[in-house]
Amino acid sequence: MAGNSIGQLFRLTTYGESHGKSIGGIIDGCPAGLIVDIEKIQLALNRRKPGQSNITTQRKEDDQLVFLSGIFEGKTTGTPIAFEIQNKDHKSKDYHHIKDSYRPSHADYVYDAKYGHRDYRGGGRSSARETACRVVGGSIGEQLLAHYGVRIFSYVQSVGSLALTKSYSEIDFTKIFSNIVRCPDSEMADKMIAYIEEVKKRGDTVGGTIQCVIQGLPVGLGEPVFDKLHADLAKAMMSINAVKGFEYGSGFQAAKMYGSEHNDAFYKEEESGRIRTKSNLSGGIQGGISNGEDIYCKIAFKPIATIMHNQESVNKKGEKTTVEGKGRHDPSVLPRAVPIVSAMAALVMADHLLRSKVGKI
Amino acid sequence: MAGNSIGQLFRLTTYGESHGKSIGGIIDGCPAGLIVDIEKIQLALNRRKPGQSNITTQRKEDDQLVFLSGIFEGKTTGTPIAFEIQNKDHKSKDYHHIKDSYRPSHADYVYDAKYGHRDYRGGGRSSARETACRVVGGSIGEQLLAHYGVRIFSYVQSVGSLALTKSYSEIDFTKIFSNIVRCPDSEMADKMIAYIEEVKKRGDTVGGTIQCVIQGLPVGLGEPVFDKLHADLAKAMMSINAVKGFEYGSGFQAAKMYGSEHNDAFYKEEESGRIRTKSNLSGGIQGGISNGEDIYCKIAFKPIATIMHNQESVNKKGEKTTVEGKGRHDPSVLPRAVPIVSAMAALVMADHLLRSKVGKI
Amino acid sequence: MAGNSIGQLFRLTTYGESHGKSIGGIIDGCPAGLIVDIEKIQLALNRRKPGQSNITTQRKEDDQLVFLSGIFEGKTTGTPIAFEIQNKDHKSKDYHHIKDSYRPSHADYVYDAKYGHRDYRGGGRSSARETACRVVGGSIGEQLLAHYGVRIFSYVQSVGSLALTKSYSEIDFTKIFSNIVRCPDSEMADKMIAYIEEVKKRGDTVGGTIQCVIQGLPVGLGEPVFDKLHADLAKAMMSINAVKGFEYGSGFQAAKMYGSEHNDAFYKEEESGRIRTKSNLSGGIQGGISNGEDIYCKIAFKPIATIMHNQESVNKKGEKTTVEGKGRHDPSVLPRAVPIVSAMAALVMADHLLRSKVGKI
Amino acid sequence: MAGNSIGQLFRLTTYGESHGKSIGGIIDGCPAGLIVDIEKIQLALNRRKPGQSNITTQRKEDDQLVFLSGIFEGKTTGTPIAFEIQNKDHKSKDYHHIKDSYRPSHADYVYDAKYGHRDYRGGGRSSARETACRVVGGSIGEQLLAHYGVRIFSYVQSVGSLALTKSYSEIDFTKIFSNIVRCPDSEMADKMIAYIEEVKKRGDTVGGTIQCVIQGLPVGLGEPVFDKLHADLAKAMMSINAVKGFEYGSGFQAAKMYGSEHNDAFYKEEESGRIRTKSNLSGGIQGGISNGEDIYCKIAFKPIATIMHNQESVNKKGEKTTVEGKGRHDPSVLPRAVPIVSAMAALVMADHLLRSKVGKI
Repeated sequence: MAGNSIGQLFRLTTYGESHGKSIGGIIDGCPAGLIVDIEKIQLALNRRKPGQSNITTQRKEDDQLVFLSGIFEGKTTGTPIAFEIQNKDHKSKDYHHIKDSYRPSHADYVYDAKYGHRDYRGGGRSSARETACRVVGGSIGEQLLAHYGVRIFSYVQSVGSLALTKSYSEIDFTKIFSNIVRCPDSEMADKMIAYIEEVKKRGDTVGGTIQCVIQGLPVGLGEPVFDKLHADLAKAMMSINAVKGFEYGSGFQAAKMYGSEHNDAFYKEEESGRIRTKSNLSGGIQGGISNGEDIYCKIAFKPIATIMHNQESVNKKGEKTTVEGKGRHDPSVLPRAVPIVSAMAALVMADHLLRSKVGKI
Repeated sequence: MAGNSIGQLFRLTTYGESHGKSIGGIIDGCPAGLIVDIEKIQLALNRRKPGQSNITTQRKEDDQLVFLSGIFEGKTTGTPIAFEIQNKDHKSKDYHHIKDSYRPSHADYVYDAKYGHRDYRGGGRSSARETACRVVGGSIGEQLLAHYGVRIFSYVQSVGSLALTKSYSEIDFTKIFSNIVRCPDSEMADKMIAYIEEVKKRGDTVGGTIQCVIQGLPVGLGEPVFDKLHADLAKAMMSINAVKGFEYGSGFQAAKMYGSEHNDAFYKEEESGRIRTKSNLSGGIQGGISNGEDIYCKIAFKPIATIMHNQESVNKKGEKTTVEGKGRHDPSVLPRAVPIVSAMAALVMADHLLRSKVGKI
Repeated sequence: MAGNSIGQLFRLTTYGESHGKSIGGIIDGCPAGLIVDIEKIQLALNRRKPGQSNITTQRKEDDQLVFLSGIFEGKTTGTPIAFEIQNKDHKSKDYHHIKDSYRPSHADYVYDAKYGHRDYRGGGRSSARETACRVVGGSIGEQLLAHYGVRIFSYVQSVGSLALTKSYSEIDFTKIFSNIVRCPDSEMADKMIAYIEEVKKRGDTVGGTIQCVIQGLPVGLGEPVFDKLHADLAKAMMSINAVKGFEYGSGFQAAKMYGSEHNDAFYKEEESGRIRTKSNLSGGIQGGISNGEDIYCKIAFKPIATIMHNQESVNKKGEKTTVEGKGRHDPSVLPRAVPIVSAMAALVMADHLLRSKVGKI
Repeated sequence: MAGNSIGQLFRLTTYGESHGKSIGGIIDGCPAGLIVDIEKIQLALNRRKPGQSNITTQRKEDDQLVFLSGIFEGKTTGTPIAFEIQNKDHKSKDYHHIKDSYRPSHADYVYDAKYGHRDYRGGGRSSARETACRVVGGSIGEQLLAHYGVRIFSYVQSVGSLALTKSYSEIDFTKIFSNIVRCPDSEMADKMIAYIEEVKKRGDTVGGTIQCVIQGLPVGLGEPVFDKLHADLAKAMMSINAVKGFEYGSGFQAAKMYGSEHNDAFYKEEESGRIRTKSNLSGGIQGGISNGEDIYCKIAFKPIATIMHNQESVNKKGEKTTVEGKGRHDPSVLPRAVPIVSAMAALVMADHLLRSKVGKI
């Protein structure tokens, strides 16, 4: 109820504050017998961690992952998979200046209002550090999905007004991690990097969008009414820090279209015998259920609220105060959010994959 | 697990196919002691029902609501509130032509793939008729919220390329239901009506957007990690038939903004003593938790898939077939979707209102 | 949260007060493709209904079951199965005398304390009439289980001090419904009937026990820690009105035994190749998981609280009052509880059958 | 779904195998602002740990508890409370002899059948070591309950045929931990200790019962239908390793009683103005809801399956094998189960305490 779990059958529960002893989680419901590649999970974590490049925060965090249970002789046992990542770069002293001040567009004020007191160090539970646990859970989900032939790709589609206009189908997904901004088009990537560096110099931050594509999903995942596949996907993506919008398939563009141009005609693919659609404005989901075509969606991130400018605010008592612009923060959340978006997609798809196993006799 | 329930503490479970005996549902968890105004619920249902005007489908459905339990002497008793709406306009014969054909961009194919067999009459469970039950549940949620001073408003913001550009703060919400298209600006409403009539004449359909505004919500609703208030709101909205996108606060526009222009500065409102924000790009939610400002969001609807044109498709065996354009359908889902959007907002807010009661000692 | 649902994957939610319009429920998660025998369900309902014989209450209730959704052309569709049973024998006037008085060992007082007001007619939601919905849900669960070879038997094992001492393995289950007390031993049944008639003449009531046996269950149902198969079974049985105790396998007797006499030795059954146990003090469950042997358990019912004697009590204000002994009630709940016990067993086993489908890759 | 969580609003999820890196858990939903006394939790853990006395196993486990999150400046923050207990006494070599053999009345066989492979070291997840995490979660629940005036007491009521016949109301609860068998009557305690020592000498084990009493609970906890307070309590107790039976209030004895002797008469207590009952055969719960009287229940434990005798069994292939009687095990689970029983009671009551906060407007 307190919202620290996601998924029904494949269920991740996370814990941890930015500056507590550790962060971590428990994955309950991962089927037994899955061979787990821990290095792949650590790789995903490394792609999320701070301090990777000069366009991400210079904070160093090792994010060394340790599994505590649920994996034996390299395979899942069907029991809970617990994991832990130590918090090392505490520097708690850095945060006393925000103990009583409410940083604009952060969660400081609402936490105080909701809970009465809060762990103010580094944002506590509201810190994006929490997303590391999503990456671990999602990465195991991705390995479960891979067992069934499902693949997930995410990449930076826009930063500020710089947008890749190509469709995902024209993209070479193997190039996503070939540059530090995680945009698979090298020309656009260079522009984005230069732009983010400039924004950083100004002490400012900038938003952007990430595209996510899911391929190879079987037909029949998703439940027809409230737990439509894209509804659960939307929730998962919107739950990532800084996300303000979600669309899938034709998305907001659909609002301007006619039915006669939007419908996806069915046909039978001769070689496979599968029923497919000629176009895919539906985005791989019809009536909330996967139809076997690619699922694709776009997620909008706001600019990070922590900027290197002094900002006016109030303290607990409502008195005027100034929040100083200092510390080490990302000029753009986008590059580091790429593995988080994939993780959230994997968590939702792994859960619905299991749920789909009990749909008929 | 089968996805026919929404909410944790204020929980609606629905049932019913388009052409079964009835549709209905059970609301479990509504606190005892709420005075229920049944006429208000019927009014919301009437605003959703088909056959209201010449820009909605001409099908007539009475949608006469009956409560079966949980309300005694005009007040909720704390026990489950069950309700039922009879299905009267069966005309099952109309639907035999789609028994074996898969209508483009409908759920026929995926239902067959997922379940093995389906109630094909009128779309069965995938019919938008199911949304009537959401309106009943949401309407009770809205009455619970009203008890705490919360108000919800939804209106048509765009139809095709015709869009109201005014902010919601310049809108007179009392005018929403003054016209058949549910756009509170009478000039724009006239344009939209004329446009939908023209689309209808062509046997086509068109998409659009609905804006939803929630006012008077207390500070502290929403859970910080996966069940962020806007994440649950996104899921609820995305679960409505035909929805393709969701954004709240600054939304997709945030992806093009700088942190220095996006942050909402805090101040203390002298008369009330409340801590407030000068701007509200956050959309009333920070860190997933309501901050007391207005919540506003936009939902994108695709054009309805049922058009009055013949369309190529396949049948169960994958053989080519033609889906005929006939029947009585809406040229645009937008006007009738307005009470559904409000209902989904109410279901989410009522649930989180109850959840917020156990956050601190 | 408000406790009107049971089961995770096979989930029954019920509604309804004794004297409201109807009682009923929604089964969500029954797999598609199950052929439903409605007459069998009605038969189970008839075995629960009042007015069956001279040792049950003389109230007449028809309990005519109507399905509203989820079954099409005789088979489940995978969508919610809703059902309704009208309340006909209202006689609300009979109950005004308990509007303000608290009947001893009934739920009147705690409902008032918990909810502030209550539907006092016939006990409202606390009436055992609610169990009819359990029988419907359980009966569908039983049909699902039968598809997998599982069979459930329940019978009256004792009434007051009259107890059948034979093991269930010496019992002919086909004789359970051959007499009105539902005890498969005709000699003991005659004694029990005579005894209940005598208790009834005295205006009193008497308790007893029901034995339940589950055969043919596959190995591997149940989850190892909190959702042990017998833990969920215990909860389900304890949730039946008037139940005070539950034991399975060796039960309370185990508390007096030594490990050397209690352990069940494994052996391989040659003809089937199955691993089995020589004795079955474990009661078919080890470590919370079914081992393929018979599951058997015993449930203790207290005497019904409604007796035909005048009893002292208090009213809402705490003033002394007398609760009159009148109306038409059962001298013993046991005979009518037999189908309820089977239904609860079926609900738990159907749920865990589905849950067991996702335990390994 | 995989059953490693308990509770709805106050929710404990546990992880860990007997010989993995650690065991631990996450408590989600504990309200913010609770002052946590960690020493009290460690004390409860110490009362559960092995090696305490000569009537418990001689294995030494330190069970040193570490909290990782959710507590800041001595108080809960409303975020997940994670904790960990390292596994130190691995001695994995001791367990290779059971790698392929199925110990009688253990979970080895069903784990293999359910999951395909298992962590066989020390019983893996099925080890009673898992209950340490219940003690931690329950101990925090107990501190939350204490804030509302609720107190929980558990003690050994019988070992084999040696039973304390006094009612709990004649017991001095402060003496429970004054002896190593946890029976508050010193005379009976001495007998029990001597008896267990004798059983131990024979290499055997013996069962028994624990009585649990909950005092000071407010009126109104529990939900009326499936989640009756005693139903959730029964499930929680039955989920403890080795438990075979549960009863509350009059329990199995009620099956032999008449309504005229079983009913609890209401009266108004003059000094407090509270409505109370003269007798308490109801066991503090009516209609599934607490009525303010003491809740009391009894739990039956079977003898531990690990005995110091050689036993015949089969291996994975079904071949005959002998399970040797060796290792260090408890002759009776009873003394160490006392804090576990209290913990389970606390988990259920803390959950329902929170749930009761949203029952009425």
